[in-house]
Parts: sequence; structure tokens; C-alpha cells
Amino acid sequence: MNNKKQDKILENLKKYQKKDFSFSKGQILGSMCTQPLPIAKKAYNMFLETNLGDPKLFPGSKEIEEKYLFFLKKLLNAPEKSQGIIGSGGTESNISAIWLAKRLAPSKKELIIPESAHFSFEKIASIMDVKLVSVKLNKNYQIDIKSAKKKINSKTLGVIGIAGTTELGVVDPIPELSDICQKENVFLHVDAAFGGYIIPFMKKLGYNIPSFDFKNLGVCSITIDAHKMGCSAIPLGSLMLRNKEWLEKISVDTPYISSPRQPGILATRSAAPVAAAYAVAEYLGVKGYTNLVEKCMNNTFYTVKRIDEIGLKLVAEPTINVIAIKLKNPAKVVNLLTKQGYKINKMDRFSAARIVVMPHVTKQVIDKFIPIFEKTCKDAGEI
Amino acid sequence: MNNKKQDKILENLKKYQKKDFSFSKGQILGSMCTQPLPIAKKAYNMFLETNLGDPKLFPGSKEIEEKYLFFLKKLLNAPEKSQGIIGSGGTESNISAIWLAKRLAPSKKELIIPESAHFSFEKIASIMDVKLVSVKLNKNYQIDIKSAKKKINSKTLGVIGIAGTTELGVVDPIPELSDICQKENVFLHVDAAFGGYIIPFMKKLGYNIPSFDFKNLGVCSITIDAHKMGCSAIPLGSLMLRNKEWLEKISVDTPYISSPRQPGILATRSAAPVAAAYAVAEYLGVKGYTNLVEKCMNNTFYTVKRIDEIGLKLVAEPTINVIAIKLKNPAKVVNLLTKQGYKINKMDRFSAARIVVMPHVTKQVIDKFIPIFEKTCKDAGEI
Repeated sequence: MNNKKQDKILENLKKYQKKDFSFSKGQILGSMCTQPLPIAKKAYNMFLETNLGDPKLFPGSKEIEEKYLFFLKKLLNAPEKSQGIIGSGGTESNISAIWLAKRLAPSKKELIIPESAHFSFEKIASIMDVKLVSVKLNKNYQIDIKSAKKKINSKTLGVIGIAGTTELGVVDPIPELSDICQKENVFLHVDAAFGGYIIPFMKKLGYNIPSFDFKNLGVCSITIDAHKMGCSAIPLGSLMLRNKEWLEKISVDTPYISSPRQPGILATRSAAPVAAAYAVAEYLGVKGYTNLVEKCMNNTFYTVKRIDEIGLKLVAEPTINVIAIKLKNPAKVVNLLTKQGYKINKMDRFSAARIVVMPHVTKQVIDKFIPIFEKTCKDAGEI
Repeated sequence: MNNKKQDKILENLKKYQKKDFSFSKGQILGSMCTQPLPIAKKAYNMFLETNLGDPKLFPGSKEIEEKYLFFLKKLLNAPEKSQGIIGSGGTESNISAIWLAKRLAPSKKELIIPESAHFSFEKIASIMDVKLVSVKLNKNYQIDIKSAKKKINSKTLGVIGIAGTTELGVVDPIPELSDICQKENVFLHVDAAFGGYIIPFMKKLGYNIPSFDFKNLGVCSITIDAHKMGCSAIPLGSLMLRNKEWLEKISVDTPYISSPRQPGILATRSAAPVAAAYAVAEYLGVKGYTNLVEKCMNNTFYTVKRIDEIGLKLVAEPTINVIAIKLKNPAKVVNLLTKQGYKINKMDRFSAARIVVMPHVTKQVIDKFIPIFEKTCKDAGEI
């Protein structure tokens, strides 16, 4: 090992790193990701040389995976015979869910999604030749149940409900969707990539928020990401299935690795992010996550109050820790903030900008940001 | 941070870690993965908090990605107007390639693959409703060119060639496939997930091995993985496209992140493995990789000699650093070796077991393994 050469390359990487905006410095206020907990990083490092795609080479890592999936099963009130697949994140999980729905009903081609669905469903439509049937939103920006029901027909492959939409953090009325889908015998997939790690804890805190999990008997599968509110490291998303026998529908023969069949999309995948997510789950537990979510929600309400005080309006009252601020020219405001070292996300569809009050968006971060935001909005002619 | 609790969890993880087989201890001789170089681990750690799925938040990481793609372009003799997408590995890259082929020829459904194709193509067939048309192999276990040509018709979506098959390490005659596909105007994708990081360096060492890269004008796309012979960390695979305009065909609108459109399958993805692959490329360079490959090939020939000496036969003479050993009962031998702390991969199709002479499979590792392997084969009645 040539240490001098190595140091030079790492020094060079640091120069690039300095150009990045940073979660820990409180610069990124618009992302659904956050800095991993320190224990996540430590656990990640321990398992950097593993491959769960060849599981019998890494039986210890495989045990960690099973333990983490057990945590998710409990979190999502999944039945005994449920099973999960761990992958890279929400997009992969959503693809796998629709892949499964297609294998269960090969002749059906129409996927019913709310207008608020994540762009991963556009990818799915393009990859799988699935036709997206978009359902309008009700006044609360949730999927309109009556419209959704009307769209179901003999060609319906499945229905998507969202627990924590990407733009507004809205939770669809999953219990109603579940009833309809059960009655119509249609596959219901819930995209809780973001909400999955916050809604269960908000319920424990007494928030009145619709149930989205497997308690709803029509829910067939759920996407949930540990690298968002789970405070673990990218890449870590899971697809939970009500019935473990369904795994077989999305499995292929693997005649030259250590398992005879492999479910899911990706083949080679490291146990490092799995160990990280498991370590965080063990470290925080339900109590720790509940405390974390309580802080995020308190900071959300505090941010809303501060935004109100500077005279800006929201698209909707936040359901979870996602705040959408109406702006005449979001791109202009976002660009001006970028120059000052801050990143919030613009949202074209609502003429708005998004702040996600993740764990790294503390009261201190907000207190520092709001005056800069106020001045920027004044300069941009928003207020 | 509760340090006592953290330490307890990490101690517990170590117990699982001990159950894993290890590259660095020379226990895994059958995998196409290896231990990442130390610089890969260091670079990985630096960028654990980044997300290239939201690129304007991480402009420094994005620059690293571009620099790494430039390295790949040069390595693969890609034309000026080529472009790459970085993802999680070979399966994702192969899916993206066929997704692109489908968008370029939406009415076509038949994918011509050699019998030696990786199981990711079974996944592709299942996900995308593509029909796999399997082509028999010639006596050298390469795709049979005449048979492949005969299978091309008006329904042909694309043809797959492989540079380094998973089972035998065989390189298909890509120049001939390229000529045919150019003439027939059919999309040719080369799966060089494994071979991409070894064949270019073998050519520099004077090995007579078919060219598989963009020098062959019919080659439209190439899969290449840094987490295999690239000596970087999982997850890191790339899909290189001859024409950057094709990216648009596999892109969707992304109205709430920092880029307007996003190509490829995954959305959220860390820059950590990209920084790792780039750091290794900078550290080793073409010269370093060539030296590494020279060592692997010398160790391959040494292993072949030792296997011959104990009286076992190979399925075929190795083209690259993949050795397939004929066995009457591969499962039995593999299981007996597992009990002794060694992992090689069984291959049902050839009644064989595979050794991949990766950089961690040094002469010392081979010298320690061969006597154990010999005794095991005797115990199993193989010799």
C-alpha cells in the first residue's frame, strides 16, 4: 500500500466533499434523507465485505437480515406468514411489488395510482408496460376514494395507496382502500417509503392519523425505507409481503450461488446497510424512534409557526413532518437560497417549496434558517 | 449517545460477523466478489451521507461520478457521445439495458441470449414480459454464432453477448455478434459485469482474447461492475451506453428533486460506492489493475496445475480467472468444504464446482486450500 498516494487521493476527494451540501451542517432542509446515526456508520463499516446475494457465504449477516425483518414485521403489524425482501430503497420495492402483482394476475395491465404517487411508478409503467390510471385527489390531497373505486375493472392489476406522499406528506385513507380492494379482490400496495418509519410512532404519541399497515386486511404489500426516517444509511429499503409464498412468484433459479432460488430484483447486495438498519433499530427501539418523531413533529409545528409569522402560506396543514410552502416563483427562491448555502426542494406541481423536518433539522437549524429565508423571500418579491 | 448501549449492540454484531466466511481470511474461493482495497473503504466512509439521486444537493459527489464514468469510458473505448449510468450492480444494469432496448423497439419481445447468460435475464423476462430465446453454445462454451444469427427475426428486441460468463468465465465472440447485429440493426448488449475489469488488462498483458468493448461498432451497451474485479465495494455497477441521447428513453420527470429528469432504475443512491470505485481507479490506474490481473492469472494457472496434479479434470481450460472443476457430486464436496471453513460454489448445470481466483485468492491461500480440497475429494470418492 502506497500511503502517500492514498493520502493524496483522499485529500482530493475532500475537495469534492466540500462542494457538497451537508445534512449535519444543517444545510439540507428539503430532502427525505438524513445523516445516519453514528451507530449506523459503525455497523455499516463492519459488514462492508459481505454479499447477501450469496447468503450461505455470510450466514451471520443473513441472521442479522432476519432479525431486522422481524423488527419491521412487528412495526407494520404483519401477520405470522408475512415475509420481506430487503433492497436498495423505495423505487426497487415498488417495482418488486408491481412485479408480484403482475405475476399474480398476468393478464391485467392497469395500475390505479393517486395523482400524488412517486415518480417510481412512471418508471414502473415504462419498464413493465403497465398503464397508469391516475386518480384525482380530494380536498385533503388524499386519493379520492369514490373515484378510485370507479376506476377498478377487470383489467386492474393493482391499486396504490401512499402513506406519506413525497410532496405533501399526506397519508391516503388506507382503511377505505383496503376494504374496497378486499371486496374487489384487487392487489393493494402501500408506498410507505417515507411514512413507514414515522406514522407508527406518531400513533403512539396519540396523533389521529389513518392506519396504513397490515392491520388493514386488504393491504398486500408495503414499501418502507430505513434510509429515510429510519436514520440508517443508503441503500436500505424493504418490501414487506403479507404472504411469504408470494416470494416464489418473484424468484428465479440461481444454479451457481449458495441458494437455489433468489427472490427480488437485485442479486449482489451488501449486508452493511442491513446491519446499520438493524443496529439503529436495536439502539433506538420503539421508544427511541417515538422520541425522535416527537422532536421532529414539535420542530415541524415550530417551523410552521415561523413561516406563518413571515407571512407565507402553506399548500396544506402538514400531516407529518413535511411542509409545503406556497411561492409565486419557487425556482427563484430555491436558487437564491442555494447561493447562501441552503437547499430546500422546489415542487413544480404545487408552485411550492418543500421543507422536510428530518432529525438533523433541529430547532437551532430552523432558527438560523428562517431569517435567511425571510430575507430571501423579500428579495424575491414573495412577501 | 449512549456509549454503553452502542458498544453492546456492536459487540453483538461481531458475534454474527464471526459466523460469516471471509474474503480476507482466504475462506471464500468461489465468489466473484472480493475484499475492497483499503482506499475503497476510506473513500466509502467519507461519502456515506450523500445521495446522487438528488444531485444538486451533492455537486462535489456528482463531479466524482463524472470522473469515474470518464475512467470507464476510456477503459471500454467508448465514443465521445457515450454516457453511463451508475447503479447497484450487474442485474440492475442488465435490466436498464433491456428497458432501453424495449423503448427503442416497443413492439419487439424476443431477447436472444446464450445458454450461459446470467440469471438476471430470467428476472428481466419475468419483470418485463420479454421472451428469452436461448442459443446453444459452441464447443468452447461460447454463444454459437450461426445459431444466434438464425434466431434473429422481426420480433427480436436485442441480442446478449457475455464477456466473462458467470460459470466458466468464457468470453463470447463479440466482434462476430457485433457484425451481425449491425447488419440486422438489432440492439447488442454486452454483459461484462465480471469481465469488464479484467479483459482490458489481459489484452495489455498480451493475452489473445476477443475484444468485447465499444470498438465493436454493433455494441450498444455494456454492463461493468466495480464491486467484482474492480476491487471496490458493493454496490457499484455501471451501464455504459454508446449514445447519451438514449438516456432520455429511460428517464422520467422528477418534479420534486433537484434535477428535472432522472435516468435509470434507482432513485436514492449513495455516492459512497462511487467515490470508492473512483478512488481505486485513481490509486491503481491502468498499470495497477494490469499488475493485479497478471497476479490473478498467474495464480489461476498455478491453481489449474495443482488441480491437475490431484487428478481432477476441468470443464474447460479457463479463459480468465474462473476455474470449473468437474465433480461427480459437487454438492457433497461443497458441503464437506463448508464444514472445514471453505466456500467454493457448486454449479449444477456442469456437475462442477467453481473457483474464482480473485485478488484475495493468493498463492498462500491456494497452497493452504489444495491439500484440504484433495483430502475432501478423496473422502467424497471423487479421486
